[in-house]
Amino acid sequence: MENLVRSDERIDDLQINGYKIIQHPDKFCFGMDAVLLSSFAKVREGEKALDLGTGTGILPILLEAKTEGEHFIGLEIQHESAEMANRSVLLNGLQDKIEIIEGDIKEASAIFGKGKIDVVTSNPPYMTNHHGLKNPNDAKAIARHELLCSLDDVVRETAAVLKPRGRCYFVHRPKRLVEIFEAMRKYRIEPKRMRLVYPYVDKEPNMVLVEGVRGGGAQLTVEAPLIVYENPGEYTKEIYEIYGMN
Amino acid sequence: MENLVRSDERIDDLQINGYKIIQHPDKFCFGMDAVLLSSFAKVREGEKALDLGTGTGILPILLEAKTEGEHFIGLEIQHESAEMANRSVLLNGLQDKIEIIEGDIKEASAIFGKGKIDVVTSNPPYMTNHHGLKNPNDAKAIARHELLCSLDDVVRETAAVLKPRGRCYFVHRPKRLVEIFEAMRKYRIEPKRMRLVYPYVDKEPNMVLVEGVRGGGAQLTVEAPLIVYENPGEYTKEIYEIYGMN
Repeated sequence: MENLVRSDERIDDLQINGYKIIQHPDKFCFGMDAVLLSSFAKVREGEKALDLGTGTGILPILLEAKTEGEHFIGLEIQHESAEMANRSVLLNGLQDKIEIIEGDIKEASAIFGKGKIDVVTSNPPYMTNHHGLKNPNDAKAIARHELLCSLDDVVRETAAVLKPRGRCYFVHRPKRLVEIFEAMRKYRIEPKRMRLVYPYVDKEPNMVLVEGVRGGGAQLTVEAPLIVYENPGEYTKEIYEIYGMN
Repeated sequence: MENLVRSDERIDDLQINGYKIIQHPDKFCFGMDAVLLSSFAKVREGEKALDLGTGTGILPILLEAKTEGEHFIGLEIQHESAEMANRSVLLNGLQDKIEIIEGDIKEASAIFGKGKIDVVTSNPPYMTNHHGLKNPNDAKAIARHELLCSLDDVVRETAAVLKPRGRCYFVHRPKRLVEIFEAMRKYRIEPKRMRLVYPYVDKEPNMVLVEGVRGGGAQLTVEAPLIVYENPGEYTKEIYEIYGMN
């Protein structure tokens, strides 16, 4: 194992199937958004799933553990992240099920072809405001800000790679919900299911999970609220279950 | 008072300012959606507010009680409803503040002129599916189904009557949220604030409250969940407060 992990990196236990993930404490580490997305997304038996902007590879690894999907691909533009994600795949012995590809989301349909993917997931950069960014080349900034790709790019490429009736799952900020719906409809992906994530039952939501279907008919199901904390420092039962800590 | 209320009608106490409303038990009676909309909507001092499809007149009457607005208008296409709403206005002695106009939502901008209203509210018909409707001319069917006006009609006329930067407040079904946002943007009304109403904390929402601003910039604030029931038969504290029963 020592040849897979560097001395400045750490290994986190994912609490499922004994899987682990390599992260660099100073760089972008996965958050609750990725974990919630992995539980919101459905990948069925035999399906091929693609994660756009996979970062540490957390989505393909969690989806491999949680679903019956056949093959999982993570696309990542940053060389260091892609290389580290690939080492996490090897660390878990998942190289036959998960493939990490270094490349640009904006070229996803050129890389993977059109209409060949069953499920797309993405936890794209949330922020459009780049003012005052100190290190626009830094891994965290690229993961959080729309520096290398926009929401429109993500949705356009999602629509292009998906099979007809293929599904996509995004996690994003509620304040951009109108734009998200508009971009999805622009590329003929119908929003079919949505869930808002509220930190507390009396607070504004800070995440939204959306499922879309390429070519689907109009009608949205909004699910029960996902509440994160029961009390400060104490998760709700559902969050403990999602994290495998029940 | 007896000349204002007929023997087959009833008078309900609105729990605010001593106001009452006349309703006919067999026809369309206002529901929680109207009450929640009256608390979600903001009408400021000196403003003129128009309710599209006012039914019993519940929105203008509650908004007159709850806000500092100067003048309130209710537009209603059904003669019997408009006539009854007008008697409720008289019953409360509000004829100087509230006006009930009999007319078609689809002609609102012809009736009221373009760009003259500060605030529009509407609790429009929710249902598009008219199959199996036994009495398409009946007051309840017209209030609940898009028989005489569509969502697009409501939003188009809202945009037409509003002043630039004027605000509108709608209550609708969450399953139509994508259409609502799309229609609003089509007519240059930006969705700026939204609140989902969940019957219980672990159930799907059954209402959505949306505020739009004519010509507003993009960015949506999603508010804390509005939960209706603490337990069966027991409202949450917030609902008791909204109903003035705290």
